[in-house]
Amino acid sequence: MSQVANVITIDDPADPRLADFRDLSAADRRPDRPGGRGLVIAEGVVVVERLLASPFPVRALLGVARRIEALADRLAPLDVPAYVTTAEVMAEVVGFHLNRGVLASADRAVQPPVADLVARARTLAVLEGVGDHENLGSLFRNAAALGLDGLLLGPGCSDPLYRRSVRVSMGHVLRVPFATVEDLPGGLDLLRENGFKVAALTPRADAVPLATAGLHTGKAALLLGSEGPGLTEEAIAAADLAVRIPMFGGVDSLNVATAAAIAFYALGIQDKSRETDPSD
Amino acid sequence: MSQVANVITIDDPADPRLADFRDLSAADRRPDRPGGRGLVIAEGVVVVERLLASPFPVRALLGVARRIEALADRLAPLDVPAYVTTAEVMAEVVGFHLNRGVLASADRAVQPPVADLVARARTLAVLEGVGDHENLGSLFRNAAALGLDGLLLGPGCSDPLYRRSVRVSMGHVLRVPFATVEDLPGGLDLLRENGFKVAALTPRADAVPLATAGLHTGKAALLLGSEGPGLTEEAIAAADLAVRIPMFGGVDSLNVATAAAIAFYALGIQDKSRETDPSD
Repeated sequence: MSQVANVITIDDPADPRLADFRDLSAADRRPDRPGGRGLVIAEGVVVVERLLASPFPVRALLGVARRIEALADRLAPLDVPAYVTTAEVMAEVVGFHLNRGVLASADRAVQPPVADLVARARTLAVLEGVGDHENLGSLFRNAAALGLDGLLLGPGCSDPLYRRSVRVSMGHVLRVPFATVEDLPGGLDLLRENGFKVAALTPRADAVPLATAGLHTGKAALLLGSEGPGLTEEAIAAADLAVRIPMFGGVDSLNVATAAAIAFYALGIQDKSRETDPSD
Repeated sequence: MSQVANVITIDDPADPRLADFRDLSAADRRPDRPGGRGLVIAEGVVVVERLLASPFPVRALLGVARRIEALADRLAPLDVPAYVTTAEVMAEVVGFHLNRGVLASADRAVQPPVADLVARARTLAVLEGVGDHENLGSLFRNAAALGLDGLLLGPGCSDPLYRRSVRVSMGHVLRVPFATVEDLPGGLDLLRENGFKVAALTPRADAVPLATAGLHTGKAALLLGSEGPGLTEEAIAAADLAVRIPMFGGVDSLNVATAAAIAFYALGIQDKSRETDPSD
């Protein structure tokens, strides 16, 4: 590891340079809570790699030697301290056992203004009341894989940069552009001014089956609610149309991130954007 | 609750009638492990309702009064003891705190012979190496919602009747027919003899995009592997074709249950089966 200038071995769990990583399950480590410090924490080699490749300003890494070595090539060009210690010291600092062996901290990147995000996008999701951190993380992972251009987070959504969402998203919250929309359904006007058709996903009987909703062509925004209560009546009424996933055997619900994945797929983004070259 | 004949109040956590529910996290409660007793355990009102409506022979219920009351109509016609106790006694019996407040135990139902399941089905999934209980449960939930006729479990799959799979599936492991296939890819012959086109889902570059794979018409079986290693080369080679979900932004994977949901949707079951009447 000698080629990485900023690798620093630390033995003392009380070392003040590890402050970013201390007591991660404590309430003030929640970036979305009053008193929280707003830091973004990435866990594991894959997610740390995505953080290093993101616009988020990385502050420091903490890991066991093997994991920091795995990241050496990515760290070499960066001026970021990488603290190396044992799994035991890491557990003592963090407050619990971490089987991924490496963490990185970053400051928040500035969110793009909603208007910029909407102006650049052809496919968007607008979330209302998605408060569950794992569902939110899964939604970002699915949005990234299926080629959405961004997510707008409406009232009642939790912070996608909370540690658990970052992890479940496989780091894609750090890559997929998102912005906060304070007012729903008012905020939908901006989408329509930009030529979007807004489709509310709901199991309601009068909704149109996804496959026949004509979302393949033109700009489309999917309005998604939380798994239990679903979208508010106001949100559904404010959409251009309501769409549903046909379901069978008396079942009337899917996990929200799963339903979103099906709807993202049904947007036909393969006809709108260049997919990942599968031969890469 | 007086109309339910078999409601029995129990105060003593050591009562031998509660044997089905004792120490649920202990190894011998794993129906799939040597020494396990094979019992199926359902947790929560919704899943217990699905168990009561299933072909699984219910043995007993254990719950707090409020939850047993919620199930009274379903219990009335059944000759099954429903033990009522406090949340504290339940926790002591079960070995951990259970916030769903009701459990039911059942013996295993006899699995349909593979040949019968295949003969009756038009759409199937064949799983190889899906060992994660939560992914397996989610796969069953998605299969139920999206109208699959059944699942075949090949080598390396875990037991879908383990408690965690039952819970994550929302009880749909108790409703969606499944059978074990000892030999893959050998077992695929039976599918072809029954007129199925077998499609292997894989991110491989030479796979056909799902939307152009022609799975809408006729009988189709989707071959699905686990999230990490994916399908074996042998399984992919033995399929009639390989299909992929187009992905973007350099991402090359989705959660296996999410990928399966997209593929189930893309089978076009709405054109093959009667969907749930959304006005119900």
